[in-house]
Amino acid sequence: MAAIITHPFLAACRREKTSYTPVWLMRQAGRYMEEYRKLRTQHDFLELCKRPDLAAEITVTPVERLGVDAAILFADILLLLEPMGVGLEYTKGDGPVIHNQVSSRTHVEQLLEFDPQEALPFVFEAVRKSCAALNGKVPLIGFAGAPFTLASYLIEGGGSRNYLKTKRLIYSNPGAWRGLMERLSSLTAKYLNAQIAAGADAVQLFDSWAGCLSPEDYERFVLPHTHATIANVTPGVPVIHFSTGTGGFLNSLRAAGGDIIGVDWRVNLDAAWDYLGHDVGIQGNLDPAALLAPPREIRRRVAEILRRAGGRPGHIFNLGHGVLPETPVENVIAMVEAVHELSSR
Amino acid sequence: MAAIITHPFLAACRREKTSYTPVWLMRQAGRYMEEYRKLRTQHDFLELCKRPDLAAEITVTPVERLGVDAAILFADILLLLEPMGVGLEYTKGDGPVIHNQVSSRTHVEQLLEFDPQEALPFVFEAVRKSCAALNGKVPLIGFAGAPFTLASYLIEGGGSRNYLKTKRLIYSNPGAWRGLMERLSSLTAKYLNAQIAAGADAVQLFDSWAGCLSPEDYERFVLPHTHATIANVTPGVPVIHFSTGTGGFLNSLRAAGGDIIGVDWRVNLDAAWDYLGHDVGIQGNLDPAALLAPPREIRRRVAEILRRAGGRPGHIFNLGHGVLPETPVENVIAMVEAVHELSSR
Repeated sequence: MAAIITHPFLAACRREKTSYTPVWLMRQAGRYMEEYRKLRTQHDFLELCKRPDLAAEITVTPVERLGVDAAILFADILLLLEPMGVGLEYTKGDGPVIHNQVSSRTHVEQLLEFDPQEALPFVFEAVRKSCAALNGKVPLIGFAGAPFTLASYLIEGGGSRNYLKTKRLIYSNPGAWRGLMERLSSLTAKYLNAQIAAGADAVQLFDSWAGCLSPEDYERFVLPHTHATIANVTPGVPVIHFSTGTGGFLNSLRAAGGDIIGVDWRVNLDAAWDYLGHDVGIQGNLDPAALLAPPREIRRRVAEILRRAGGRPGHIFNLGHGVLPETPVENVIAMVEAVHELSSR
Repeated sequence: MAAIITHPFLAACRREKTSYTPVWLMRQAGRYMEEYRKLRTQHDFLELCKRPDLAAEITVTPVERLGVDAAILFADILLLLEPMGVGLEYTKGDGPVIHNQVSSRTHVEQLLEFDPQEALPFVFEAVRKSCAALNGKVPLIGFAGAPFTLASYLIEGGGSRNYLKTKRLIYSNPGAWRGLMERLSSLTAKYLNAQIAAGADAVQLFDSWAGCLSPEDYERFVLPHTHATIANVTPGVPVIHFSTGTGGFLNSLRAAGGDIIGVDWRVNLDAAWDYLGHDVGIQGNLDPAALLAPPREIRRRVAEILRRAGGRPGHIFNLGHGVLPETPVENVIAMVEAVHELSSR
């Protein structure tokens, strides 16, 4: 236990000094990695999520392969939606599809109630197996989708360009919207807490699509619900609050909560941190596409982000979004090495 | 002529006081409008662009129908790419496709040289016919794609999610990138100036995809070229410099030039204007999706944006991006009326 408590990643979550800047990558276990692609030829995506032995293997592999300072559970934000009875399907090529989309108060009320602990036992078993395999080497990050991002999946039925159905429901039926967000907010907190109970050392809340909103819509229709989720996470466990395209309202993301605010590459890290205030940590923010550049250029960009972070406690190095499937694994390794070397103090 | 010179839209471009806030909408002539859909049943998109009589009709219709304070030429940013010999095709459903994508210095050198005036006579004829039909009622805005957005189309071959080919070229072949951007920058300025010579009263430069970049990449690889374009526009003609998703580096957009900076809805207009500085005008910034809300809510949101603009000279009301095809025309009219009524001084 002592090894985990003093680990740089968790220390940074608490804005304590560390001897180097900890680093991990969103989607560090993913399609860019040969080991993962090999498993995917034998198992479909949902099967990998539902087989705790395989999920734990995928979770742990990048720690060995890349030398990162944290593992993130292999799972998917939409797993939590499946027991609601909305007809979730992972189609080949098109990504996840929800067949019974939510478009009214009645639909919201018809969503099945469940206890994540009972409905998704494989997730918590994967957490336990991952912790056992990691054996205190690095902390394990659990995660969930934030209420807005989950709601938009339920309403749009899949990915979206303009989030029109979601915005239409917000405008035309704020009661149904509130009902849906309250359900998701409470469910998400329970889900995160069950991951924590199973052994997760920190959690990340992904509000990947919040950047489609105006600052005012975020404040009125999203912030209170994300706030409720984060406020209900087991006390003492660090929460990373991540989104993209929200550079114009980072103050509201911060108000919604989180020990660390994850930012994308569309903002300068120093300007973003000044805007957030230095009494909160920051995670980010290399453009995932930059990992397609030559290693020398990657190193230069790592140095630039570290310079902007200024060695202040509370910076966790990461990409601004997930690793792209086209990324050469050796470039990821070069990035991790550069972060460790250039931030050593 | 006097009527045009004193028109609120042009006065606002010069940050002069106006008796109300001028308003127009990106894509105000588009698929959401019945008149346009009817024309599209008889003619394909490129035909409409190349028939000056029809293009002028489409340009002028929204002025009558909506009561907006400016017309924008009906055309497409990719028209300028066709004479380069890249195999531009407007496919049904999939949008524009470029068959001979640019991926090397050799490709850049193979792009055909041409004079926009000679290669695109129909554009300038459409400008002349539009001006004749508008007859000084409201000014006409000409437009072009900014060098980055045009380059990304040439490299990606169409729309893109992550702009990986573009970023790869930037990282791996900065010489080819510079060559391409210099070509596009010079061509774009010539194209805008030819529209001005034909009668356009102002021009808008669309850098619609610049928001995929980090601030540093924008500054290093885009800003100098956009700056060159804007610096070469006929002196005295207002330039609106528009982009989306760039709330994290509006200062750099501003440094690239423009009398008016167009911002999307992901930023608060007052915060954005403070960041830009009040010695430049601002255009925006209602979420296009908000036009699907009930008219009362649209009015409330218009009032909020006007409140943030604070009645300062130099605000042009617009959406944060183009009108969505799903938009009811009566909601657009309600928006325009609300802007005029609520901003009257």
